[in-house]
Amino acid sequence: MSERLGPPLDEPVFDELAIIGIGLIGSSLARAIRRQNAARRIVVADASEEALGRAEALGLGDAFTTDLAEGVRNADCVILCAPVGANAAIGRAIAPALKLGAIVSDVGSVKADVIAALQPVLPDHARLVPAHPVAGTEQSGPDAGFATLFVNRWSILTPPEGADAAAVAQVRRLWEAIGANVEVMEAAHHDLVLAITSHVPHLIAYNIVGTAADLEDVTRSEVMKFSAGGFRDFTRIAASDPTMWRDVFLHNKDAVLEMLGRFSEDLTALQRMIRRGDGDGLFALFTRTRGIRLGIVAQGQETAAPDFGRRVPDDGKAGR
Amino acid sequence: MSERLGPPLDEPVFDELAIIGIGLIGSSLARAIRRQNAARRIVVADASEEALGRAEALGLGDAFTTDLAEGVRNADCVILCAPVGANAAIGRAIAPALKLGAIVSDVGSVKADVIAALQPVLPDHARLVPAHPVAGTEQSGPDAGFATLFVNRWSILTPPEGADAAAVAQVRRLWEAIGANVEVMEAAHHDLVLAITSHVPHLIAYNIVGTAADLEDVTRSEVMKFSAGGFRDFTRIAASDPTMWRDVFLHNKDAVLEMLGRFSEDLTALQRMIRRGDGDGLFALFTRTRGIRLGIVAQGQETAAPDFGRRVPDDGKAGR
Ligand SMILES: NC(=O)c1ccc[n+]([C@@H]2O[C@H](COP(=O)([O-])OP(=O)(O)OC[C@H]3O[C@@H](n4cnc5c(N)ncnc54)[C@H](OP(=O)(O)O)[C@@H]3O)[C@@H](O)[C@H]2O)c1
Ligand SMILES: NC(=O)c1ccc[n+]([C@@H]2O[C@H](COP(=O)([O-])OP(=O)(O)OC[C@H]3O[C@@H](n4cnc5c(N)ncnc54)[C@H](OP(=O)(O)O)[C@@H]3O)[C@@H](O)[C@H]2O)c1
Repeated sequence: MSERLGPPLDEPVFDELAIIGIGLIGSSLARAIRRQNAARRIVVADASEEALGRAEALGLGDAFTTDLAEGVRNADCVILCAPVGANAAIGRAIAPALKLGAIVSDVGSVKADVIAALQPVLPDHARLVPAHPVAGTEQSGPDAGFATLFVNRWSILTPPEGADAAAVAQVRRLWEAIGANVEVMEAAHHDLVLAITSHVPHLIAYNIVGTAADLEDVTRSEVMKFSAGGFRDFTRIAASDPTMWRDVFLHNKDAVLEMLGRFSEDLTALQRMIRRGDGDGLFALFTRTRGIRLGIVAQGQETAAPDFGRRVPDDGKAGR
Repeated sequence: MSERLGPPLDEPVFDELAIIGIGLIGSSLARAIRRQNAARRIVVADASEEALGRAEALGLGDAFTTDLAEGVRNADCVILCAPVGANAAIGRAIAPALKLGAIVSDVGSVKADVIAALQPVLPDHARLVPAHPVAGTEQSGPDAGFATLFVNRWSILTPPEGADAAAVAQVRRLWEAIGANVEVMEAAHHDLVLAITSHVPHLIAYNIVGTAADLEDVTRSEVMKFSAGGFRDFTRIAASDPTMWRDVFLHNKDAVLEMLGRFSEDLTALQRMIRRGDGDGLFALFTRTRGIRLGIVAQGQETAAPDFGRRVPDDGKAGR
């Protein structure tokens, strides 16, 4: 997986850019935009004094404020990087202060609901271009971010009907400048795609870790000790930020329930195969699923190293 | 995660050791035992000419044969490393050729069923000490193995009632010599613990990858492109060997169905929370699950690096 940023831009995409919410994603954006010279000036706004203090100590911007309206006053582009449940309130707070024609974008994991929350509260002159970078880690907060987080990852833009083409082009240029590939799709379709590639996987990871923690006949200590058989992979995802994920499930309810319904149906069929001892059926499914990973590795979205390259065997490569 | 082997033994645990099935686990054992001088002579037997040819080319043993009986004739210890469904047949094939008092062990992911398959077919003089190293990768075959696979991992011994204590002690020494921690438990309890820490995780990983592959409204290409949101983690597990996993589910049916039932119950409750918009309930679960990962990392069973350390940010550590 290549993870290098290209050369910085000669000419920034924006004069002044405001980031609201300086957590994992916001701080990664700030670092990447600075490194790539994609904005002349970066203003950081966050509701949390503590996060803001860290951001300042880390030098993530040129100005820092807990007053969101103050933060966006001169911004050509404002990017909302707080949990998606906060977007409506943030939209209301910044609306009166927005510069004429300012671009408002975000990084939220849910898109239709974000548009529904922001469109009614933003002034008509503001140009809304929602975005979602499909990149992250299980960590959160300003210290967890890094400049190369978006390299070779997809950022999905979901401009609402009638969105300003020039604004969409500028947001695209911003993401491309920090190493991302850009795809444009409808918000509703985005929400369905991400329900299966991200939201339901998180849900079932949280669920199995919860199930394991609650057993009476197997202790938590046993669960931890013997987790290398597969379980520990799920605990990584289930260690993600609770606020962010609560908001995702509250705001992408329909698509998540739809995909969860299919998952459960398929699981019932699989359960029946086990009960009946249908080895051929199990074998067929287990064979069919291998190809998908090969495709993901081929597309550069995953490392080919066994076990995610978690361990580098001390006898050289795994094949020896 | 420390992954270094200690110094080799001065005195081997066994004079001659036979490995039957030279795949990921068998070949890792052969490499580790050789490196640690844990056996004077290693005989490799496998039903597959091809696997045997690779094993010989890789220098994994001192003798190579497709004749299992021939392979075990002088062995003080025989370790069965084929998929668990093959154990009864292998047991029958080697029974007449076993040396007096030979230790028969295995590495199968299921234990009660393995004992039930082997005990009736082995001669009375043979000493059965089943084992299961909780370590592996998604790859298989003799090329995928490596000597440090078992370092700092648990190997669970499940001696049947009345097992020979000296034999259990020797098998323990063997695993400790190649870097593993050893735990002894009842076979039935092992099967329950592994159902939740390994078998059900694999089942739901296979299941969600299958669900994603079958959607009509989301294409496979979209699933692959946007897999970095969580899905790709599941594809690693779902790329594991189909034969091995078919056998696990056929031979640990009851414990898997039991744990799967609990998982499904919990998932139904979670689904209801989403439907009702119960943000507090979701938040409570998502918070509770974080501690388990911390425990796993603290116990040295997992890397603390974000994203499994898949990417090393080019700007130094993630925190900058
Ligand atoms: N994490 C991922 O993998 C990932 C990937 C793609 C997209 N996203 C999206 O990115 C967004 C941020 O996620 P993150 O992982 O960066 O979260 P994070 O690390 O928790 O950061 C969120 C930041 O926003 C602040 N905040 C919360 N409410 C606010 C408000 N009303 N006004 C201003 N600031 C507020 C938080 O302060 P407090 O800490 O005080 O609450 C925190 O500093 C979410 O919408 C998420 O869906 C996340
Ligand atoms: N993979 C893991 O992560 C893991 C972890 C812990 C324990 N285990 C256990 O370890 C065992 C082996 O798994 P693995 O991953 O090493 O599998 P693997 O890489 O597929 O190797 C299995 C080997 O056994 C051979 N074999 C199959 N049937 C045989 C028979 N009747 N007689 C002799 N050889 C036979 C296979 O030959 P063919 O290729 O021609 O079939 C292959 O060479 C299984 O019982 C599994 O439950 C696996």
